[in-house]
Amino acid sequence: MKKRIAFCVSDHTGVTVEAVAKSVLAQFPALEFSLIALPFIDSPEKAQAAAAQIAATPSALVFSTLSDPALRSILRDSHASLFDVFDLVAPAVETALGLPAIPSGGHTHGMNNDYESRMDAVNFALNLDDGLNPERLDQADLILVGVSRVGKTPTALYLALQYGLRAANYPLTPDDLAQDSLPGVLLAHLPRLRALTLAPDRLAAIRQVRYPDSRYASLAQCRDELVAAERLFARHALPVLDTTRMSVEEIAAHLRHP
Amino acid sequence: MKKRIAFCVSDHTGVTVEAVAKSVLAQFPALEFSLIALPFIDSPEKAQAAAAQIAATPSALVFSTLSDPALRSILRDSHASLFDVFDLVAPAVETALGLPAIPSGGHTHGMNNDYESRMDAVNFALNLDDGLNPERLDQADLILVGVSRVGKTPTALYLALQYGLRAANYPLTPDDLAQDSLPGVLLAHLPRLRALTLAPDRLAAIRQVRYPDSRYASLAQCRDELVAAERLFARHALPVLDTTRMSVEEIAAHLRHP
Repeated sequence: MKKRIAFCVSDHTGVTVEAVAKSVLAQFPALEFSLIALPFIDSPEKAQAAAAQIAATPSALVFSTLSDPALRSILRDSHASLFDVFDLVAPAVETALGLPAIPSGGHTHGMNNDYESRMDAVNFALNLDDGLNPERLDQADLILVGVSRVGKTPTALYLALQYGLRAANYPLTPDDLAQDSLPGVLLAHLPRLRALTLAPDRLAAIRQVRYPDSRYASLAQCRDELVAAERLFARHALPVLDTTRMSVEEIAAHLRHP
Repeated sequence: MKKRIAFCVSDHTGVTVEAVAKSVLAQFPALEFSLIALPFIDSPEKAQAAAAQIAATPSALVFSTLSDPALRSILRDSHASLFDVFDLVAPAVETALGLPAIPSGGHTHGMNNDYESRMDAVNFALNLDDGLNPERLDQADLILVGVSRVGKTPTALYLALQYGLRAANYPLTPDDLAQDSLPGVLLAHLPRLRALTLAPDRLAAIRQVRYPDSRYASLAQCRDELVAAERLFARHALPVLDTTRMSVEEIAAHLRHP
């Protein structure tokens, strides 16, 4: 199938416009699309270069979140199919609010004001990764628990980067799993514990990549650990999230809204 | 100023609709908004509960990326000001493509297909953080270099989580900075090196949080290190990014599109 090119033009990072383009284009499964990001288009010169690149691409689609009307007008000169997210959404919001939209330039996408807290949260996730520094668990917003390779670390980092949440993570080792209750260091923090689990075959596949053909990666070992972990989660009535069919974004969004 | 409530309703994680809502609302600086995320609204029951919550909120704004027309219709019953991103954008795309949009449900936001590679990239960033495992630098897409606390680690993690790029990071220590050239282990990888720098007062403020009133955090020490680092970057003609006024998203988007 021939791929249609979809440009994603932004005066900032392009994260928003790429997300919109992917979501909308997923509704046209009969076609294949190839996305080209054009971020930081924040001057007439850059907009003209983008318009020229677009004009040279047959049947190009263009998603845009440019907020400067002058730059949008340059983009329209490319004569491609242009979907300007702000043009399409902002007028309805103007009507509802009874106020005109004021182009905000490329640097007020609501991301910067919480920058410090998100960087602090990343450092926290790294410092309290894999059971490190348990004396600081009382500073955590959430404490992820689960067996090795269940997805605790990427989830904690995503919670930090996307939402500024301070997430610690604590691995349950086979020694921990042989006990009747969770490790003592966790018991003072039960309300903030969030348990992660996974289908045994999926866990085995993930461990197999790391330590091929090891006992650690065997299906039997994975099943035993997960059964023991879920017994501990039930004993302490922890909220449990089965991440088998989830991306890290989905896991994080579920944990943020328990 | 009284805050207007803006709900962000999604049948998936809500990352897209929250990004759109923040971008659009930033264009109304005279008002303050408080965002409430309602993710995973993927059944009539959940949609009815969301509509009830919205209906009970005076003057609520509602941004939505629900793709199921039945759920969207339930949401409309809340009689709030509803901005459905798909309703507003998809018709224009349908016209351009000459095809009807097919509601894609909540699980095809284009995120899952590259899940493995992004998790692999996160593990790579952690394994090659702070100069660890330099024998694997040849597997990196990018190698971030710079002085301590210039932002290498969060940037590498964001490049991994958002874009699936394998980013190593290598700190330049005062010993490295006293040499005439970059550390030998980096010289084989010059084309993939990306240098980060920062204003001295900003670096001092960041270090101050970590080691208050230390020599390490002093403005003189930060300035000396940054001057020496920038001399090394120039000697090897590395691309240098000044991250002083950038969020981690902005740094990552610049590095992705050098």
